[in-house]
Order: sequence, then C-alpha cells, then structure tokens
Amino acid sequence: MPNNPEDKKRILARVKRITGQCEALSRALESGSDCGPILQQIAAVRGAVNGLMAEVLEAHIRDEFGPPEGEGGARTGELLALVRSYLK
Amino acid sequence: MPNNPEDKKRILARVKRITGQCEALSRALESGSDCGPILQQIAAVRGAVNGLMAEVLEAHIRDEFGPPEGEGGARTGELLALVRSYLK
Amino acid sequence: MPNNPEDKKRILARVKRITGQCEALSRALESGSDCGPILQQIAAVRGAVNGLMAEVLEAHIRDEFGPPEGEGGARTGELLALVRSYLK
Amino acid sequence: MPNNPEDKKRILARVKRITGQCEALSRALESGSDCGPILQQIAAVRGAVNGLMAEVLEAHIRDEFGPPEGEGGARTGELLALVRSYLK
Repeated sequence: MPNNPEDKKRILARVKRITGQCEALSRALESGSDCGPILQQIAAVRGAVNGLMAEVLEAHIRDEFGPPEGEGGARTGELLALVRSYLK
Repeated sequence: MPNNPEDKKRILARVKRITGQCEALSRALESGSDCGPILQQIAAVRGAVNGLMAEVLEAHIRDEFGPPEGEGGARTGELLALVRSYLK
Repeated sequence: MPNNPEDKKRILARVKRITGQCEALSRALESGSDCGPILQQIAAVRGAVNGLMAEVLEAHIRDEFGPPEGEGGARTGELLALVRSYLK
Repeated sequence: MPNNPEDKKRILARVKRITGQCEALSRALESGSDCGPILQQIAAVRGAVNGLMAEVLEAHIRDEFGPPEGEGGARTGELLALVRSYLK
C-alpha cells in the first residue's frame, strides 16, 4: 500500500518532510538552540507524525472500500471524515 | 541547550535514530509494504518522538536546576522521574 | 450509535468506569496524595479515554460495514484490527 | 499535593468538569447520538485530561521550586512555560 499513485506520492512527500524536520532539529541541537524552540520543533514533528498516521489509514480505507465519491461511497466518506478529524 | 556534552550526544543520537526510522519508512512505502507494518513503523516513530521530547525536557531541567545527585538534588530527581514517567 | 446493543452496553460501561476513575481522582486530590500517584491516575484516565475512542470507532465501522465474520467481512476485520492497534 | 489552596481548588474544578463531560457522554450514548458528535465529545475529554496533567505537573513545580515571581523564579517560570506549551 498505498495502491493509488496519488496517495503514494502524497504520503511519501509527508515522510520526506518529516525526515527534513528531523535533520533541521539535529542542526538546531548542534548549534545550541534554546530549549523552547527545540521543543517547538519536536512538537511539530509529533503533529506531522500523527497527520501521517491518519493519512495512511485514510489511503488504506480508500484502497479497500473504494472512493467516497460514487455509488455506496457515502459511508466510506463518513468514515474518512471521522478518521481525519479524530486521529490527528 | 543541552549544555551537558553527554546529554547532547545522547539526544542527537535519538534524533538520528528517528531520521533513520523515517528513511526506512520511505523505503517500505516505495516497496509497497502492507498497511499494518507501515502503521506499526509510524507508531514506533511516534513513540520515539515522545521519548525525545521527554529527554530534552529532562536535559533542560538538569541544566537549569542542577544534577539530581548531591545537595538539594532530591526535588530535581523527583521532577525528572515524573517527567520521565508521564510525558512519554 | 452504537446500533448493536452489545456494543452500546460495553461502551457505556467504559464511560462509567472513566467517570469512576475521575471521582477516585477527586478523592485523591482532596486527601492530599503525592504528585506521582496523582499523575499515574491521570495517565490511566488518558489511556482509558484513548481506548474508548478506538472502541467507538470500531463500533461505528461494524454498524456501517457489517460484522467482520461472514461474507465480505475480511476487509472490515482488517480495518478493525488496524484501528484497535494504532489508535489506542 | 497540591499544597497551594488556589492550585488545589482549580485542579479539583478541572476534574469535576471532566466528570461532568463523562456524564454528558453517557447521556449522548444512551440517546443514540451520531458517531461524529460522540467522537467530538471524547476528543474534548482527551484534551481536558491532557490539560489536567500539565496543570498538576505545574502545581508540583510551584510547590517544590517556589513561585515564578520573586528572586530565583526566572528558571521556574521558564520551566512552567515549557510544561504548559508542550505537554498539553
């Protein structure tokens, strides 16, 4: 997974962004930044990881249950909205 | 921060480990791994980020309030134990 | 929701257990317990709330997509397992 | 803990508010509310529990290290700000 090329591209871009945030965090620690900004960067990574988890689960749901548009998609769309709102 | 070289080394090693976990996650996504193992890897990153946040806060407390050993260190030691237990 | 009476009963029992944990926490605070045990009780409430959120989402999935047993239930069963493992 | 009567009063009021949120959640479940609003209420409880944990840790820090105002309070004030920002 994900089977959908658009989903795969978007999820990989998220992971690369998180990798970049970690590299920036290493540099901030090396250069002796203050604790507040360091914790702020770590909190941003944590938020991004939660967003990634929700996005992966959403892609799995679309892969397995079909797109929320079209016939029978209403319950899938509702589930996607719940995952998006409450898992992040 | 952190002022203590040992703390700095240990925290930087944690960040590098998280960066490595993100790179492994990119590879797993590229190679089309199943959703379960992907979410498991993301959950591991999330746990590591929480551990990093606690470790940074602990290092800040030791930098500012002195080591938990020695005179007046008991309340610092207690605070470090609380941060370690409940922030992760 | 939940439509299934068994789910409803189990979810309500969870909420009542959390209410009871909050009442025990009030008593511990009134009686001047130490910070460590207080934080431990709060961490237990936090874990129980996360478990409740997962259980409610699982009940919603079973209500909307049918039980994991029986025809076409495999993908529902897989989704339930993912929600159970990674949302708590 | 908490030793300070103002802290104690405020923390107990938070716990009672969470207890009230749980009772409202029971009623919403009994009356068959939709999954979205139910999850929203659970997410609100989760946020309140995280806020409570931060408040208890802050009260402990003030009890043990003195108020952030006055001599030597700057490092305590900084630590309180960090706990407040990143633990919630």
